[in-house]
Amino acid sequence: MTDTMRRFVLAARPEGEPGPEHFRLETAPLPDPGEGQILARTILLSLDPYMRGRMSAARSYAKPVEVGALMEGQVVAEVIASRSPRWKTGDVVVAPLGWATHGVCDAEAAFRTVPGVPLGAALGVMGMPGLTAWVGLNDIAGGKAGETIVVSAATGAVGGVVGQLARAKGMRVIGVAGGAEKCAYAVAELGYHACLDHKAMDARTLSRAISEAAPDGVDAYFENVGGTVLEAVLPRMNTFGRIALCGMIAWYSGFEGAPPAPLVWGAILRQRLRVQGFIVTDHQNRTGAFAAEVAPMILSGALKWRETVAEGLEAAPAAFASLLRGDNFGKQLVRVGADPV
Amino acid sequence: MTDTMRRFVLAARPEGEPGPEHFRLETAPLPDPGEGQILARTILLSLDPYMRGRMSAARSYAKPVEVGALMEGQVVAEVIASRSPRWKTGDVVVAPLGWATHGVCDAEAAFRTVPGVPLGAALGVMGMPGLTAWVGLNDIAGGKAGETIVVSAATGAVGGVVGQLARAKGMRVIGVAGGAEKCAYAVAELGYHACLDHKAMDARTLSRAISEAAPDGVDAYFENVGGTVLEAVLPRMNTFGRIALCGMIAWYSGFEGAPPAPLVWGAILRQRLRVQGFIVTDHQNRTGAFAAEVAPMILSGALKWRETVAEGLEAAPAAFASLLRGDNFGKQLVRVGADPV
Repeated sequence: MTDTMRRFVLAARPEGEPGPEHFRLETAPLPDPGEGQILARTILLSLDPYMRGRMSAARSYAKPVEVGALMEGQVVAEVIASRSPRWKTGDVVVAPLGWATHGVCDAEAAFRTVPGVPLGAALGVMGMPGLTAWVGLNDIAGGKAGETIVVSAATGAVGGVVGQLARAKGMRVIGVAGGAEKCAYAVAELGYHACLDHKAMDARTLSRAISEAAPDGVDAYFENVGGTVLEAVLPRMNTFGRIALCGMIAWYSGFEGAPPAPLVWGAILRQRLRVQGFIVTDHQNRTGAFAAEVAPMILSGALKWRETVAEGLEAAPAAFASLLRGDNFGKQLVRVGADPV
Repeated sequence: MTDTMRRFVLAARPEGEPGPEHFRLETAPLPDPGEGQILARTILLSLDPYMRGRMSAARSYAKPVEVGALMEGQVVAEVIASRSPRWKTGDVVVAPLGWATHGVCDAEAAFRTVPGVPLGAALGVMGMPGLTAWVGLNDIAGGKAGETIVVSAATGAVGGVVGQLARAKGMRVIGVAGGAEKCAYAVAELGYHACLDHKAMDARTLSRAISEAAPDGVDAYFENVGGTVLEAVLPRMNTFGRIALCGMIAWYSGFEGAPPAPLVWGAILRQRLRVQGFIVTDHQNRTGAFAAEVAPMILSGALKWRETVAEGLEAAPAAFASLLRGDNFGKQLVRVGADPV
């Protein structure tokens, strides 16, 4: 067994898009788990858009990662040493080990993976992005049969689940994604009634296309993107429509080209919209209800997903930049170590 | 009795601030009420910020006033001819007669004033602005004792009522108004714990002042203004705070100086805010509950208000421009005819 680990720390805070200069790969001795802790080796690392926020010093819902500190993140890992009765060597867990080949954490911070569910799904449809989708649709947007929902980042780790769950509820489901390939997949595989390519259209054209795809208007919008997608959807929102505000990836690295605030504020007022921002960590108490509904859909093959897997921890910074640009397809993972034997 | 009437029609759609050139005073024969209608003479005309929206062709929650058509508005009027058993000559009603000395309307479109309540209040604290305040506070913002609310346009026809009702609920109530005189009145007469002059501060300074006045943060924001007031309040909103979006008078005549949309979108996301736009006409079913609570407060003198009264129908355009600039103090009315004998 190796006695060293590798990890990425934040080297500098990016102003715009993060690049390789904002991360630094370090080697360190393998840490010893304290009492009640485990040591685990990373198999898969989850890359998620929220990490961009952690790289900035600006106030947010979670503390920023300090410069020089480990980049945070959830991983699937195999326990290689345990000082807790809760876990034994060889157990496979979901744990907050960050961008690293190995890590130590409290036994209570690790969670069991669901038997029969592929390891990558534990970080995707069955993990934080899946719970985000489920909570946002059921508790925030509140969609019901016969209504129309628009889902941005429609094939992403969150959006892909929202679309399929909304379709299962009997809603009319319109996706917005970047590129013809994603749009074709959304309709053919995920069950979207239509999916529109925002890269092929300006806001006005996209808005007209949404209007055609949603002849009864839009009752709910699952917002992951901001940017021209938001501009296009807003005029199509029905009176008393709801917006579940989950992310705004188009604006994480800057506000260039953004419309003025009154455009959004005026639509909320005139159309009497309800906009609610939400963060999945506030809704952990919904994990049981989520898993009860979604795990069977995964095990039966009813719920589909795609993954983009970068090879090796060293690939994480480039894969993260790619995720922020939308170059990934589905859930973005990094393969850090081999599956358990 | 006169056999002619005067009225203002929309002469042209304003691009920015409305001026005298956008209105035209016309004289016309006094109309005859049809079956089931009344003819009434206007005593007081209500001027309200929503009228700016009606002057624009842009899509909104109500149809725009056509160029050449009567400017819409609510008035207190005396019935001078009735073809309905519902009303008789001499009755005083609240009716949608518009910017005119006289008008005809369906008997069902007119409402009785509350005995003992001054006529101006029928268009203010006891009328549409009062109901707006009550619904926005109770049904949209949902404030409760011990919470902190910020009210913009704090001494306006709506804000003045919000502040007093919130104080009566046991909330900490912070006003934002334009000018030292309004702020002093808000604290001394309306019971605000503090009131901040947005004309004396930029957004950053105002935000710091809100922070000092609201040491536990802001749980609810009653939004009438937009502009720098919104910019200042947003960073002070507590996690899970609520914004009742009632108006955005700073942006009715243009978006100059407005912040980019992501500034608002990001705050809603990070702070998990719930923003809800509302229009009082959707909430007419709450009139009974509103009146039951507020009428006694008016009759007992517990609820206070101010009025700015322009003299004569001819003064309406200038008074309306003044209202949009915030130069009025309290409810803006136009005295069109004498009180009933």
